[in-house]
Amino acid sequence: MPTPSLNSPETSGNDFWSKVPQPTIERLSAYLQCVRTLREEGEKAASSAEIARRTGINAAQLRKDLSYFGEFGTPGLGYELEALETQLARIMGIDQERDVLLVGFGNLGRALSSYTGFGRRGFKIVAAFDVDPEKIGHKTAHFEVFDLDKLPEINAKLGAQVGIVAVPAPNAQGAIEALANAQVRAILNFAPVAVKASDGIAVRNVDLTSQMEILSYYLRSH
Amino acid sequence: MPTPSLNSPETSGNDFWSKVPQPTIERLSAYLQCVRTLREEGEKAASSAEIARRTGINAAQLRKDLSYFGEFGTPGLGYELEALETQLARIMGIDQERDVLLVGFGNLGRALSSYTGFGRRGFKIVAAFDVDPEKIGHKTAHFEVFDLDKLPEINAKLGAQVGIVAVPAPNAQGAIEALANAQVRAILNFAPVAVKASDGIAVRNVDLTSQMEILSYYLRSH
Repeated sequence: MPTPSLNSPETSGNDFWSKVPQPTIERLSAYLQCVRTLREEGEKAASSAEIARRTGINAAQLRKDLSYFGEFGTPGLGYELEALETQLARIMGIDQERDVLLVGFGNLGRALSSYTGFGRRGFKIVAAFDVDPEKIGHKTAHFEVFDLDKLPEINAKLGAQVGIVAVPAPNAQGAIEALANAQVRAILNFAPVAVKASDGIAVRNVDLTSQMEILSYYLRSH
Repeated sequence: MPTPSLNSPETSGNDFWSKVPQPTIERLSAYLQCVRTLREEGEKAASSAEIARRTGINAAQLRKDLSYFGEFGTPGLGYELEALETQLARIMGIDQERDVLLVGFGNLGRALSSYTGFGRRGFKIVAAFDVDPEKIGHKTAHFEVFDLDKLPEINAKLGAQVGIVAVPAPNAQGAIEALANAQVRAILNFAPVAVKASDGIAVRNVDLTSQMEILSYYLRSH
């Protein structure tokens, strides 16, 4: 199968990347997950119909989403999965390591810091922060837990651009602001509360209940 | 504003509920989250354009998705948010409490068991299970941690239909099967590994890295 071509960020510039609609990016992440699952199941190639069936996103949409980034797949043969995974990872910017700051080292923070998924996808927690004197100073194999007040000072050295917020809901907004003040530009918020961020900072709220709600629909419908 | 009408599950039967496409259900969950956020921000009503802008799902799709379930909103006035939230919650089947079994009481399991979001949406953990003798017998304010071997026996009494898997990746498949054997019908899997379930059992894999990947795209594009 021919190697798919990919519009390069070097040649396209930032304009190109920010022109792609947000829902397309979310779907690309879903395709990537699907491709990984297919590969874990031992598949080498898949049709757009198969990817559509598994992701619930129709095949025409899949082809349109990928078309932003170049030519993928071969008519009648489908997608060669290893190449597609590599290209999708490159598009998503996860073909490089990213340093991550973790705010909150309670149960959820500890769970996230030992979640093997992050490391496997190139996200490396390099420092954690908390306000609890009992947690400050704790060292794991990979990072130390610092006083939240030290965040700007420490990130001036580390230069991490990604943050994870795993604090109780009432502290989430403060944690977001502390990260923003320390030049963090992309934040994953696990606190079950709506937060606001200043312009130029991306915040994604992870609602752990939404998946449960979709299951709940299933229970009523079967 | 008129009260929106809703196709009732009693009159429509299970056929109706299972006929609704899976992507529609996922979008309903996104609309529900959006409506909650708008209400937290103090809004009373919103146009389909506003909901479209926030969810990234276009307004025509929103109207089509809702049309499966009846009439919502008023032309020119938009959606009355309190009513829309109530109706969406009813559609998703989260207007009732659901008992949940938790498998795995490590950091992630403990974090999930103290995650206030679940309780607020009517998901109540009624028992936890682990294989570690140090965890078995532990009691929280709401449930006890039992030996995983006791799962079928205990759920014969509890009758919970929903399970959460928060075990290390190599143990995930076993945990899914233990829940399935104990008549659990819907499972949320947090282990970062693909799992298989028998027919008639819904499993949703929560990949905590996918949100991070979407942020990663943002970092390269800004």
